[in-house]
Amino acid sequence: MPEWRKDPILDRWVVISTERGKRPSDFRVIQDEKKGGECPLCEHHEWQTPPEVLAFRDKDSERDRPGWWVRVVSNKFPAVRIEGLNDIKNLGLFRMMDGVGAHEVVVESPDHERSLEDMSRYQVQEVIRAWRDRSLDLRRDARFKYVQIFKNHGSTAGASLEHPHSQIIATPMVPGEIGKKLAGLASHARNTGRCIICDMIEQELLEQNRVVVESESFVSVTPFASRFPFEIWIIPREHQPDYGHIREDQVPDLAFVLRATLKKLSLALNRPPYNMVISTAPVNTGGAEEAIHFHWHMEILPRLTVAAGFELGTGFYINPTPPEMAASDLRETRVVYGDHYENKYQEVGRYV
Amino acid sequence: MPEWRKDPILDRWVVISTERGKRPSDFRVIQDEKKGGECPLCEHHEWQTPPEVLAFRDKDSERDRPGWWVRVVSNKFPAVRIEGLNDIKNLGLFRMMDGVGAHEVVVESPDHERSLEDMSRYQVQEVIRAWRDRSLDLRRDARFKYVQIFKNHGSTAGASLEHPHSQIIATPMVPGEIGKKLAGLASHARNTGRCIICDMIEQELLEQNRVVVESESFVSVTPFASRFPFEIWIIPREHQPDYGHIREDQVPDLAFVLRATLKKLSLALNRPPYNMVISTAPVNTGGAEEAIHFHWHMEILPRLTVAAGFELGTGFYINPTPPEMAASDLRETRVVYGDHYENKYQEVGRYV
Repeated sequence: MPEWRKDPILDRWVVISTERGKRPSDFRVIQDEKKGGECPLCEHHEWQTPPEVLAFRDKDSERDRPGWWVRVVSNKFPAVRIEGLNDIKNLGLFRMMDGVGAHEVVVESPDHERSLEDMSRYQVQEVIRAWRDRSLDLRRDARFKYVQIFKNHGSTAGASLEHPHSQIIATPMVPGEIGKKLAGLASHARNTGRCIICDMIEQELLEQNRVVVESESFVSVTPFASRFPFEIWIIPREHQPDYGHIREDQVPDLAFVLRATLKKLSLALNRPPYNMVISTAPVNTGGAEEAIHFHWHMEILPRLTVAAGFELGTGFYINPTPPEMAASDLRETRVVYGDHYENKYQEVGRYV
Repeated sequence: MPEWRKDPILDRWVVISTERGKRPSDFRVIQDEKKGGECPLCEHHEWQTPPEVLAFRDKDSERDRPGWWVRVVSNKFPAVRIEGLNDIKNLGLFRMMDGVGAHEVVVESPDHERSLEDMSRYQVQEVIRAWRDRSLDLRRDARFKYVQIFKNHGSTAGASLEHPHSQIIATPMVPGEIGKKLAGLASHARNTGRCIICDMIEQELLEQNRVVVESESFVSVTPFASRFPFEIWIIPREHQPDYGHIREDQVPDLAFVLRATLKKLSLALNRPPYNMVISTAPVNTGGAEEAIHFHWHMEILPRLTVAAGFELGTGFYINPTPPEMAASDLRETRVVYGDHYENKYQEVGRYV
């Protein structure tokens, strides 16, 4: 019998096919062909991008020159623009405003070939810091109400460049999806005095059947009402509303869990295309208390199925892989890194 | 300057790229390769499907035998099942219920090769009637609160069979997307005494810059806040909450607008993959008044771009084609059907 499962935060149901649960080998992952040619995100091609807004680079290297290991630039073809007013105009029934916003590209490494899960632990930490630093800087523009950090990996997931990169878009309004999550979290907090994501982590760690990787400060799980096969969320164990407020002592742990989780996914499913989104509290809320009820998390959303008419019409999803089965397959996928600096974390992370 | 545009019903914003607006030739539409082999939906293969639940067939033909022109069967691999209870069970924090529902396949024609837009006007009318009849029959099961009629055309849009077909899934709860639409429509009605979709049609017909095809009873438009390039909605001119209540006198008109709209899309974009969803009032609402505020419509959603991390994280969309440009391209795409029965409608439909 299939199951309808409700997302604990949102009014969103998914159908989980429990009988004919699809295993990794049931998905046909087509690898992107290598494009070849010049890559504007590679080292020595800095002149092909807009000027950098942030770079972690050698002390004696020059801005917009080689010598960096993480580099953030404005998107050359931005969906939204810094210039403009966030005043709403009415056109009869309709409403619009200038396409204000910021659209940046985080170049995660000078190395064209190495995906996030194959970078050194140190490099992944630096990517995490770049996301944090840009989130903190972008919110200094009071017009922005949300900073969306995301990654499209593979052409099926919408990536147009193969060089490892992620993107950041700051928006002048709180996105609908974030507003709904915040409303769900705040309502639960008012009713119970508790954060439902904190409670969820507790239940998941107790039950252990949807846990993928855990460390001192983070846990990765396949959510109970996963929309996609092998969907994984990485969640800080402590209640932390805002990704921008991640502390230095959490960074190595997040790097460990993120890298190990992505590596397991990559090995189990033969480098599948995926999207990653960081879901976090709105910014510049003008002192509204509600944002403290957010509990930020990172969602890894493999693109193994096609969201089609049913999903578009209803907002419900059909997921052919029970998350318990996905977690079990991912736990059993062993990750060995050559890097001896891993040792401490290999002990902490139970399944790595 | 790009524009943020707000959906008039939902709290959903889209970014419309007005400068580098993508025209039909900017999209690379890859045609599916013909699969060949046996097709379980073709005539003479009736034994390969579950028994029919509805068929329009010759008087002297037998059930589950040749002689039909539209045939509806249960899905052989249903996502949800008729058996089971719609009782919610709690698992700690989580909620679930049996995967109850109905999942049917509407075989739109015995002809494997002919897509909806190339069928005769009479055939399209019969498909419209089959959707209506199944919607009316499925709601007789009081467990069902919504009947989602949808179509996936092309593998990029999630179709796994190439034979022309659509699908119907009845769900035991009102989908989130429908609940939000209904709330938006009901709130506007309470505040203004008017239906915002009725008002929208009035404004669109006055402005004429987003109208694609119009007839006596229906109009197709590219919505002001289109999420997808060449997104088109077909809307009844009169306020009609429920697709199931479409009248016989509306059927030929809807067939005309649907067929002409799809044909224009097919010609302008070289047979693009698309999803079609019918958005309509919930059923079995137990006398709740609110459902009368729905105004059903059909959404045609071409799959020319990939909804990626930004869309998944925020629920906002980036659309590279302004709907005014899409409507203009579609209006200019002339459709000529050989069928002389078209004449009446060719006069009514201004742009066909």
